[in-house]
Amino acid sequence: MSQSNTASKVFPEQAFRWQGIEEEAYKAQGTHFSGARRQVLIGGGSGEQGISFETRYFEVEPGGYTSLEHHAHGHVVVVLRGSVEIVLDQTVQQASPFDCIFIAPHSLHQLVATSQDEPLGFLCIVDQQRDPPQLPDKETLNRLSADPRVAARIRT
Amino acid sequence: MSQSNTASKVFPEQAFRWQGIEEEAYKAQGTHFSGARRQVLIGGGSGEQGISFETRYFEVEPGGYTSLEHHAHGHVVVVLRGSVEIVLDQTVQQASPFDCIFIAPHSLHQLVATSQDEPLGFLCIVDQQRDPPQLPDKETLNRLSADPRVAARIRT
Repeated sequence: MSQSNTASKVFPEQAFRWQGIEEEAYKAQGTHFSGARRQVLIGGGSGEQGISFETRYFEVEPGGYTSLEHHAHGHVVVVLRGSVEIVLDQTVQQASPFDCIFIAPHSLHQLVATSQDEPLGFLCIVDQQRDPPQLPDKETLNRLSADPRVAARIRT
Repeated sequence: MSQSNTASKVFPEQAFRWQGIEEEAYKAQGTHFSGARRQVLIGGGSGEQGISFETRYFEVEPGGYTSLEHHAHGHVVVVLRGSVEIVLDQTVQQASPFDCIFIAPHSLHQLVATSQDEPLGFLCIVDQQRDPPQLPDKETLNRLSADPRVAARIRT
């Protein structure tokens, strides 16, 4: 038997902003990212029961980037606009709308917005219960930077 | 300390199909849907650790529809192409790319592809552990059909 449930809702998008959802700074503080904003679309709000994940939208200005970081939880990324070069451990890979990316536990990753004229926008889905991101230590950075392609891309 | 992890991967999209991911029938059997296909993008494969959700892509041909159903788990839907009218309990609402929809536990819902010339394509994210969908009983159908707007839209 179905019940009416007012928590069900359509959130209309316009210019990559979703009505009825508050916008946040990407992170409260830090020096390892640039030109990024985010919205938790669904998964953080009251009444949003029956799911154990968060669907977030991140947007990164041209030339901007997310933190180079790693953590035990996985990420699912779906690119919605712009283009990205993603550092994924010892590789640098490219993606564009609507490519999908799986970032496995402990993978070191950084997303760089590579379009000249359009921000990089992507969905990033994670478990609600997750460990905090960690920045790489100096040894890891040195190891990654041994590859000139990776060294040319990472921003710290 | 970061480790290399070969489970991290980019799945390139082309024409709303993702390379490296197998396509499935929408459901193995049933008479309550029409013209639908799906891909589990991430969350069902080996090595896809660190997440407790599945990110799926559904595509519905013009005029086609998903099952009118309800269940205890929630859904997050992000429209990627086409347009949709969604029956959401006693309402009929419209959505288009990149509108986002939260379907709360026990909400009766059905998505109908309303573009004449383009399929409806959408991401649907759910917990990996979830209860099976249930079709509405006759009493619920009668109650919904009392509203002519809903009656005109639902397909059973």
